[in-house]
Amino acid sequence: MRKSLAIAAALFSLTAAAKEPKNIILMIGDGMGPAYTSGYRYFADDPTTPVVESTVFDQLLSGMASTYPDEPDTVVTDSAAAATALATGHKTYNGAVGVDRQKVALASIMEIAKRQGKSTGIAVTSQINHATPAAFLAHNENRSNYNAIADAFFDDRVDGQFRADLMFGGGSQYFQRQDRDLVAEFEAQGYHYVHDNAGLAALTALPALGLFADVALPSAIDDKQGPRLAALTAKAATLLAQNDKGFVLLVEGSQIDWAGHDNDIVTAMHEMKDFADAIRWAKDFTESRDDTLLVVTADHSTGGLTLGAAGKYQWRADFLRKVPHSPGVIATRLGQEAEPVKALPALLGFTPAKDETEKLMNAKGEGDEALVKAIKRLIDKRSLTGWTTTGHTAIDVPLFAAGTGKEAFQGLLDNTEIAKRLIALVQPGTQGSEQLVKDKQQ
Amino acid sequence: MRKSLAIAAALFSLTAAAKEPKNIILMIGDGMGPAYTSGYRYFADDPTTPVVESTVFDQLLSGMASTYPDEPDTVVTDSAAAATALATGHKTYNGAVGVDRQKVALASIMEIAKRQGKSTGIAVTSQINHATPAAFLAHNENRSNYNAIADAFFDDRVDGQFRADLMFGGGSQYFQRQDRDLVAEFEAQGYHYVHDNAGLAALTALPALGLFADVALPSAIDDKQGPRLAALTAKAATLLAQNDKGFVLLVEGSQIDWAGHDNDIVTAMHEMKDFADAIRWAKDFTESRDDTLLVVTADHSTGGLTLGAAGKYQWRADFLRKVPHSPGVIATRLGQEAEPVKALPALLGFTPAKDETEKLMNAKGEGDEALVKAIKRLIDKRSLTGWTTTGHTAIDVPLFAAGTGKEAFQGLLDNTEIAKRLIALVQPGTQGSEQLVKDKQQ
Repeated sequence: MRKSLAIAAALFSLTAAAKEPKNIILMIGDGMGPAYTSGYRYFADDPTTPVVESTVFDQLLSGMASTYPDEPDTVVTDSAAAATALATGHKTYNGAVGVDRQKVALASIMEIAKRQGKSTGIAVTSQINHATPAAFLAHNENRSNYNAIADAFFDDRVDGQFRADLMFGGGSQYFQRQDRDLVAEFEAQGYHYVHDNAGLAALTALPALGLFADVALPSAIDDKQGPRLAALTAKAATLLAQNDKGFVLLVEGSQIDWAGHDNDIVTAMHEMKDFADAIRWAKDFTESRDDTLLVVTADHSTGGLTLGAAGKYQWRADFLRKVPHSPGVIATRLGQEAEPVKALPALLGFTPAKDETEKLMNAKGEGDEALVKAIKRLIDKRSLTGWTTTGHTAIDVPLFAAGTGKEAFQGLLDNTEIAKRLIALVQPGTQGSEQLVKDKQQ
Repeated sequence: MRKSLAIAAALFSLTAAAKEPKNIILMIGDGMGPAYTSGYRYFADDPTTPVVESTVFDQLLSGMASTYPDEPDTVVTDSAAAATALATGHKTYNGAVGVDRQKVALASIMEIAKRQGKSTGIAVTSQINHATPAAFLAHNENRSNYNAIADAFFDDRVDGQFRADLMFGGGSQYFQRQDRDLVAEFEAQGYHYVHDNAGLAALTALPALGLFADVALPSAIDDKQGPRLAALTAKAATLLAQNDKGFVLLVEGSQIDWAGHDNDIVTAMHEMKDFADAIRWAKDFTESRDDTLLVVTADHSTGGLTLGAAGKYQWRADFLRKVPHSPGVIATRLGQEAEPVKALPALLGFTPAKDETEKLMNAKGEGDEALVKAIKRLIDKRSLTGWTTTGHTAIDVPLFAAGTGKEAFQGLLDNTEIAKRLIALVQPGTQGSEQLVKDKQQ
C-alpha cells in the first residue's frame, strides 16, 4: 500500500508537471448567471429531436463561483469589481478597475503574463475599455472614466511593453477622439489596425487593434454583418498562439448583461448563442492541443432572471425561438409601417391576441420607450419569463473548464480563487497568492 | 511513458475497485435551486468576522443537474416527476410517483437495494408519503393519492420484503386512519414505532417507523421541540449501518420548497439551515469511513427566488437573520396583542417605519391571509428579495458529493443520470441503465 502510494505520488507529480498549460483562455459571460445557461439549453434545443441536446455549457460545467465584492453593506457585485477579482485575485469595491479599496493598483494576470514573455489579448463585444476588459488592462478608481482608461491602454506599460498585444471589440469613439487619436498612436507603435470583416481576415501578425464599432458591437440578434465573437476569438487565439512562450486571452460575451439590465429575454438568449459559439470554437482549439487551458465563468447574474412565472409550471423557450428581432428593432420597424397592426405577426414572429394587440398599439401611442417595454412584457408573458430587478443579484455563477489543468477549476471557487489559480499557472513554481502583492501604478 | 501509463492504469483499476461504496446517502433539498444555496451562504455568514464563511454546500459542490420532465410542452418539473427521475433513472410526467408515461412501475434504487440485501430508509420533514419519498418507495399514477401511497408502503413488497426498513418523518394522519391503522400493521410485522424525541433516542434496532407529526413536521423556524432533520438523519444512518451489506438512505429537506411556494424568504432560509445541519452530519459520517457515498441535490427550484430587487445592488441577509418567527406566527401573535403596533418591533425583529406599520395594520384589518402576505412583502422589500412565481422554474439545480465514489458526480448531470450512476453502485458489475427496465408493479 505504501509502495502504491509512492508510485501514485510520483505519477501525480509527473502529471502535475505535464499539467502546466502554456496558454490560458479565460472567457467571461457578463451577467451570465445559472438561469441564463439553463435557459440557453432549452432555447438552443432542436425541437425536431425527442431529446434535449446538451450545450457547450453542459459539456464543460465544472463548478460554480461566488462573486461578492469587498463592500461593507452588500454581497452584490458590479462588473468592475468582479472583473478585478477575476483579473487580480483581489476583491474590491463596486466600480473599481484594477485597484483595491485604497485605490492602489493590483497586478493583473495580463501584466504578470507579459513579464513571463507571454502574449496577451482581449476579444469582447462591448467597447474594449468597458469595465471587464479594463480591469485586465488598466487601473482606475472609476469604471466610468472611459477616456482615461483608453489612454491607459496606450500609456501604461509593463516593463516597457504594452499590456495587450491584441485588442478586439468596439470603442473607436474612445480611441479616435478629437483630443487624442489613440489608433494613430498604436499604429505608429506597429499595431495593425482593423475595423471590419475583411481587415480581420487579412490579419496575420501581432500586435493588433480591432475596433469594429463606435461603442459596442451590435446586438447579436440584429447583427447581420459581423464580425461576431466566435470570429474574434478564433483570430485572436490563432495569432496569440504564434508566441512559443504562450498567451493569455480574455474573451467576454459582454452584452448578456445588457440584455439582463433591459429585462429582454430574446436579446439575452441570442447573446448567449453568440457567446456559446465562441466557447465552442475555444473548446475545439483547446482540446486539439495539450498546452492550453480554457476557463469560462460569469462575473455575476443580471436582472434576477428566472425561468418560470405566474404560478405556471412552464418556460416556453420554443416561443422565444420564433421572435426574429430584438424588441428595439421590432418597435422601430413598427413605427415605419403604414398598417402596424397588420405588420405585427411578421415582426413579432407570432400573432398576438386581440387584447395583446391593443396593448401594443396603446403603448405605441405613448412613444418608442413604452412600445419597447410593452413588447418585452408581452414576450415575457408568452414565454413565462420572470425578472426581479434591473440590476444585478448575489446568486453564484457557473464555472466551466476544459483542457490542460482543468482539474484545478472544479467545485465552488470564489472569483478571487479562480484568478489566483490562473496566475499560479502563468508564473509556474509560485503560489498564485504570492503574485498578488499590490504594486504601484505602472 | 507507456510504462507509466500501464502503472497508472493498474492504479486506476485498484482505485476504481476500492471506490464501490457500500452505503449511499442521497439527500434532496426540495425546491433548493442555486439561489437558495447562494443565499444561505450570506444568511449563515458570521457578521462578526471579516470573511464570508463557507457553508457545507460550498465545501461539497461538485456540479449541477438538469431537471426537465417527460412532458411534451414544458421543461419545468414537479417534485413527483423529479423524484421519480432521481429514484429510477427515468423521466416521467408531472405528478407521477415511480411510474412512466404509460403508468408502468419503474424499479427504484430502494427496490434494487433490497434485492441486493441492503437496508433502506427515508428521513424527511414532510409526511413520509409525500411526492419525493413516495417515488422511492411506491408506484402510483398520482401523487395526490396519499392514502393509497401509504397503503403501498405496507402492502407492496420486494421479494416479500418491505421496501423500507426505516421511515422517519410526518404523516400519522395517513398511517392511523379510521379505515386502516398502518402503524399497528407495521408494529405487528416487527417495526418499532416512535413518535417523539424520547422514542427516537431509545431506538436501537431496525425495522422502525417514526411519525413525528400528523402531516408535516413544523417549520424549522418555529419548531422549538424537534426532532429536526439532522437528528433523524443521524439515527437513520446509525441504525442502517448495522447491515454489513450496506444501506441506501434518502433524506429530504422537504419544506424548502413549501417556503418557496409561499414566497417566504425567512422560512426558506431556516429550512435551508435545517437541511444544512443534516448534510453536515452526513458529511462527517461519510468522511469518517471509506465505504459511504453522499450525494446531495435538489429536484427543482421553487418560487423564482432571486437575491436582488428594485434595481439595487444589494441582498440583505443580515436583515433576514433578525426576524425571529415565520410570517405566519408573527401574524398569529399580532392578532393576540391588545396593542399590536407596540408589539410589532419585537415580533418582526426590526422596527417598521410609519408607512410600513400602516400597511401592516391595514392588512391586519383584512384578515390573517392578507397580514401574512403583507409581512412577507415587507421582509422582501427590506431584504431586496425577488420572486417571480408561486410555482417551480426550469433552472438547473446544484449537485454535491462526498465520500467514496464521489468522482462520478461531477459536472452537469441530468437528474436521471444521477440515479443511473447511483443504481450502478448499488448493483455492482452492471450498468445502471440495465437495472432500469420497466418492471410490473410488485
